[in-house]
Formats: sequence, structure tokens, C-alpha cells
Amino acid sequence: MEKTAERETGRLEAFSDGVFAIAITLLVLDLKVPRADSLPPGGGGLLRALAKQWPAFLAYLTSFATILVMWVNHHILFTHIRRTSQPFLYWNGLLLLFVTFVPFPTSLVAAYVLTPQARTAAAVYAGTFLVLALVFNGLWRHASTGRRLLDPAARAASVQAITRQYLVGPVAYFAAFLLAFVWVPGSVGLCLVLALFFAFTGALPRLFERKRSESS
Amino acid sequence: MEKTAERETGRLEAFSDGVFAIAITLLVLDLKVPRADSLPPGGGGLLRALAKQWPAFLAYLTSFATILVMWVNHHILFTHIRRTSQPFLYWNGLLLLFVTFVPFPTSLVAAYVLTPQARTAAAVYAGTFLVLALVFNGLWRHASTGRRLLDPAARAASVQAITRQYLVGPVAYFAAFLLAFVWVPGSVGLCLVLALFFAFTGALPRLFERKRSESS
Amino acid sequence: MEKTAERETGRLEAFSDGVFAIAITLLVLDLKVPRADSLPPGGGGLLRALAKQWPAFLAYLTSFATILVMWVNHHILFTHIRRTSQPFLYWNGLLLLFVTFVPFPTSLVAAYVLTPQARTAAAVYAGTFLVLALVFNGLWRHASTGRRLLDPAARAASVQAITRQYLVGPVAYFAAFLLAFVWVPGSVGLCLVLALFFAFTGALPRLFERKRSESS
Amino acid sequence: MEKTAERETGRLEAFSDGVFAIAITLLVLDLKVPRADSLPPGGGGLLRALAKQWPAFLAYLTSFATILVMWVNHHILFTHIRRTSQPFLYWNGLLLLFVTFVPFPTSLVAAYVLTPQARTAAAVYAGTFLVLALVFNGLWRHASTGRRLLDPAARAASVQAITRQYLVGPVAYFAAFLLAFVWVPGSVGLCLVLALFFAFTGALPRLFERKRSESS
Repeated sequence: MEKTAERETGRLEAFSDGVFAIAITLLVLDLKVPRADSLPPGGGGLLRALAKQWPAFLAYLTSFATILVMWVNHHILFTHIRRTSQPFLYWNGLLLLFVTFVPFPTSLVAAYVLTPQARTAAAVYAGTFLVLALVFNGLWRHASTGRRLLDPAARAASVQAITRQYLVGPVAYFAAFLLAFVWVPGSVGLCLVLALFFAFTGALPRLFERKRSESS
Repeated sequence: MEKTAERETGRLEAFSDGVFAIAITLLVLDLKVPRADSLPPGGGGLLRALAKQWPAFLAYLTSFATILVMWVNHHILFTHIRRTSQPFLYWNGLLLLFVTFVPFPTSLVAAYVLTPQARTAAAVYAGTFLVLALVFNGLWRHASTGRRLLDPAARAASVQAITRQYLVGPVAYFAAFLLAFVWVPGSVGLCLVLALFFAFTGALPRLFERKRSESS
Repeated sequence: MEKTAERETGRLEAFSDGVFAIAITLLVLDLKVPRADSLPPGGGGLLRALAKQWPAFLAYLTSFATILVMWVNHHILFTHIRRTSQPFLYWNGLLLLFVTFVPFPTSLVAAYVLTPQARTAAAVYAGTFLVLALVFNGLWRHASTGRRLLDPAARAASVQAITRQYLVGPVAYFAAFLLAFVWVPGSVGLCLVLALFFAFTGALPRLFERKRSESS
Repeated sequence: MEKTAERETGRLEAFSDGVFAIAITLLVLDLKVPRADSLPPGGGGLLRALAKQWPAFLAYLTSFATILVMWVNHHILFTHIRRTSQPFLYWNGLLLLFVTFVPFPTSLVAAYVLTPQARTAAAVYAGTFLVLALVFNGLWRHASTGRRLLDPAARAASVQAITRQYLVGPVAYFAAFLLAFVWVPGSVGLCLVLALFFAFTGALPRLFERKRSESS
């Protein structure tokens, strides 16, 4: 039984990895080359035109960092999980739905961050990450409640640490969502800071801490 | 012989997985950011413009769910199959042809569902899924007739259950196709309901039922 | 040594598979949804507008079939090959360069097949496949000359059969290339026929013939 | 411990491979089919219109060759590396960020190489490769300093050879970057020459040299 289940996890992971890799690479399509006829004829206006696209580059960087951290998180999750279940597949499908969706709000915030509609765009952007954080919690809760799908070797301390850590996401992205209505640059900036924060203090260190402690 | 054949299945699956993963991720390109110059100058019109795009979001969700269920189905199929044959490769190639095609009718229905051309768009959309259901049946029939390519360990009851279950698809999608000519929202809605229905009562439960019963 | 080399082939194959899978899936982006404002206001014009896009659908089908057959061919090749070499990597890189290029002439022929520029578009289309056939020959010649990179278990008859079979491609696509200048539909149609011909009489049967004979 | 770490490297490599494969295939989207209404009505203008797009084809070729060489380099790197660490994951993430970014400057240089803004476009293009070369050095330095993450079997001579070889990249691409301000064709051409140079004298020969010497 265990062998079959593990193999099923392998396939699910490979498919998920493919979706993550494609979604993260499609982000570049949101970067648009400035149209030549929109530039002043003298030359030298291209750098200024590119500089004016800074919201697109910022959104690209933020979404890239966020998807990368989510991919690392997804793998940490699966290092603790041994079996799958039907609801687990739904949660994972829901997660992939919003992962593939990320290029759209990224494009939206890049296009509207300097316009009067910036609040709406920033709220949709932070709101997407809020939903992703909630889905990640649902996925983990389903797998970890009563150690339902966990690897018997997963240490209780590691499991609890992930549960605690996952609570930060929804709260922080809800703050970014609310901030969108009062201070747009702060909301988008907070999303970037959160991705870097999770990368440097959350997901990645946890990955190695766990491996070191469990393999020793 | 068996080892070689199994390896060949592995490659075929990996290639098919890649195509499924890319097709499901490309769907996001059908979601278009509303053009800034089409909005009222005051601000606040973006949310309304996004809400007006609900057919695109609905089509995105429906196509995503359908491709995901097809991917799960494809895997269930391959857990029963041990060998490949030339016609089997054609059937699989035909399946991938229509899987990669899905973003086009998705885009079509999103663009036309609110116009006088809605019937045509919805008929093409449901028609694509009808063809996919037929190709899935052809693929399975070729593999299962006389247990031609099946794993010797595949239980007859599981095989028959899949055969029965696969008959639902063509009938249901033919109904959605016909419905497109009289009630467009019903046709598109039926496609979404079918994807969810197959996910919750068809493919996924079967996957786990089979594994539990066969591994016990 | 053999183990290391085999693993290196595995990576090369996986990377190549990814490129094939993505290129075949990107073809759908060449299918454009007809613009709503180009249709007659009464409704019912969408089907006619789609029908008028038949060159795009034909080119989609032809390119899909051709890339799929090339993928199968690529795998057959690698079932005979055990080692890699530096020139082999260049040949494979050149092959991937033209595989990723296929969506462009596909788009070109779809856009221009009904215009006075049809000859140029069809010549570029057939010419791309001609170059691909030549690169495939180069790749195979490098690997098979003096059995340089071949699996010791590869039978001489199989190797010679592939060498003979590969000669058909350049000649046939050169005919399609020439035909583009006198009869455009014939040239594009020949490309589709060739893909189907290779699928049904060339690559795929060979794959199974080989496996059966060598594993017995 | 070693087994777990090696598995983690495998996942990281598979994810990176996916990103490389997608980025290299997305380059084709920068090749635009000339608009039919921009051609002279007589026919025969298509070839001239395509020929006028030579900067796009040159940029496509250059970026394809560069990403391919980077992929080979990435693999050579991982054949020497046995473990991962948190900073190593950051370096690899930074590398992937710029790999997925390559289609944008490619598109930029294709659009502007014949305009008065050519210098800016060429500087951004060469600058992207300069940053990539620097990130590659950072990744390797982190892994190889004190043999931190290296495979114990990695020979000191091979490691030193890679370190020496990696110094060429930043210097050469910095020259291409400077050249962009005085001679645009020279700068873009140098990027292509560098990719071919690394392919024929750098990465690929090294790959085989290493394997031969270490496996003997």
C-alpha cells in the first residue's frame, strides 16, 4: 500500500512542479516592450520609458518571489506527507488554480498601479495571495489533522511549527489587502516584503532545520 | 519485454503530463487586463470592468477543472495499462491534440457568451469536450478490449467500472452541446457541473477505491 | 562509465521532452478568436468567421502532427543511443532550436495562405520542416557512423532501417518546398500527409517492430 | 543524510530544468508575423518584410544559444554538487529569475536595434547576460568555497577549472555591455559569439573531459 501511495504522491508532485514552473515563467509575458511610436524621435527616450514601467518590474519580481516561495513550501509539505486522499487532491487542485491565476493580477497591478484605479488592482493582487495563503492552510490542515496523511516519521514538533508558521500568511496578506484601500505602494511593497520574509525566515530555513534534525 | 514496455509507458506519461500541465497553465492567457482607456476617468470603474468579464473567469474555471479531471483520469487509465501499441499512441496523440486545443474554445466562449453569437461559441465549447470524451472512450476501449494492453493485475470489476463510467461523458457532453442551441448559460454551466461531478463522484473516488481494494 | 553516460542521456531526454511538450502546446496561441467587431451584427456570423480561419486550423493540425512524430522519432533514436558526445549535444541543440521555431512558420502560413504572399509563407513552412529533417539526419549520422554512440545491443538491421527511413524526410520535404512555388495548397497538404505517413508507416511501427524483435 | 540531500538536489534540478525549457521555448513568441496590411498589395513583399525582421531572428538565435549553454552549465555545476543550503537556494532562485527574464530584453533588442534607441536596448540585453554571469559566479562560489556543498568525489582540478572558466563570463559580458554604447551591432554580435564560444570551448568540452577523466 505504502509504495503505491508514495508513487501517487510522486506523480502529483511532478504535475504540480510543472504547473509552478510554467506559471513562474509566464510572468515575463506581462513585461511589455514599449512601443517605438510612443517614444520621442530623438533617441534616449527608451530608458525613460522602461523606467516608467517600474510597476511592471516590481510586480514581476514580487510574483516571481512569491511563486518560488510557494513552490518551496509545497515541497516541504510533501516531505511530510506520505499518502494522498480525495479531498487532498481537491485542495491541491484549488492551490494550482490560484497559482496559475497569479500572472493575471500581476498584469493588472502593473497596468493600474499608477492610475486612479490603483486601489482595486492592488486589492485584487493582495487578495489573490490571501486566498493562496488560505488554501495552503486548508491543504495542510487536511493532511495534518490527526496526522491523517503524514509520514509516520514526521516529528510532532516540525508539524506544529508548520501549522504555526502557516497562520502568519493569511493574517499578513489580509493586512496587505486592507492596506490596498488606503496606501497602494505600501500594499504592493508589503507583498514583496512578505515573500522575502517567508524566504529568509520561514520556508527555507525550516526546510533545512527539519532535514538536519530528522536525519541526525 | 515487460520492463521495456513499462519504461515506454513512463515516457509517454511524462510527455502527456507536460502537455496537460502546460495547457492548464496557458488558460490564464485568456484573461485579459481591461484597457485603461476603456474605463471612466474617475477611478473605481476597474472593479465593474472586471465583473463584466465574468464569462472569461467562468470559462477559465470550467476549463481548468475539466483539464484537471482529465489529467486524473489519464493517470487512472495508465495505472491499469502495462503496455503500449501503435494505435494506442495514435489515440493518445489525438487526446493531446484536443487537450492543447482547449484554451481556444475557452477564449471563444469568454469573448462571445454575452453577444448574439453566444450559441455558436457555446456549441464549439461543449463540442470540444464531447470530442474529448469520445477520444477518451476510444483510448480506453482500445486498451481494455480483450484486456489487450492491461496490467494482468487489473481487476475485472475495476475495468468494467471504468468502461461504464466512461459512457457518461459522451452522453452528458452531447446534452451540453444540444443545450447550447437553446440555452447558452445552461450549456456552459453544465460543462462546469460535469467537471465537478466527475471530480467528486467519478474519477477521483474511483482512483482511491481502486487503490484501496487492489492493495488490500 | 556507462552508468554515468546513461544518466546524462536521461537528462538530455527530459530537457528535450520538455521543449517538445511546450512547443506543441504553444501552437494553440496561433489560433486567434475572431474579433467581435469584425462580425455582422445579426449573430450567426461567428461560424462563418471560424470557417474562414481553416488555414489556421489546418496549420495547427499539421504542425501538431509533425512535432508529435518528431518527438516519437527522437525517442526511437534515444532507445538506440547509449552515450552522448559534444557534437551530439550540438546536433540536439540545433534540433531543439528548430522545434521551438515551428510555431512561427505555422503562424505565418495560417496568416498568409489565402493572400498573394501565400507562396513565400508556404515555402518558409515547408523549408522549416526540410531543415528539421536534415538536422535529424545529421544527429543520427553522427550517432550511428561507426556505431559511435550506439547501444551495443542495437541490431544492425534496425540501425540501417532508420538510416534508410531518414533519407525519405529531406527528399519529401524538399518536394513540398518546391511545390510551394507552384501550388500552395499542395505544399501545405503534403506536409500534413507526410506527418501522417511517417506516423502510420514510419516512426511508430518501427518503434514497436524494434522492441518486439529485440526483446524476444 | 546524503540520500535525503541528493533527493532534494534532484527536485531542484527538475524544477530548474522546467524553467529553462519553458524560457527557451517562449522566445519564439518574440517573433511576430508581419501584418498583412503592412505589405505592398502585389505579393512578394512578405520575404522582404521577414528579411527586415533579421534583428528579431538574430536575437532569437543568440538568446536560444545563451540559455542552452546556461542549461548545460547548470547541469555541470550540479554534477559536482551533492548538497544544498539555504543561500544556495537563493542563488539558484536569483539565477532562474534572470533566466525567465531573458525573453524580455530579447524582445527589446529585436524591436529597437534599428532605431535611434538601439544603444539602450543593446545595453539592457548585454547587461542581462552580465548579471546572469555574475549570479552564476555567486552560485558556484557559494557551493565551492571550502568545498562546502561539493561532492567528495569532485576533483580539485575540475573545480578550479570551473572557477577559472567562470571568470571569463562577467569580463566578456561587461565588454559587450560597454560596446553597446559605441557600436551596437558589435555588442549584440559579441553576445552571440560568446554563447558559441562557451558552447564549443567552455561548458560542453569541460562536461565530457570531466566525465572521461573521473570515470576512468
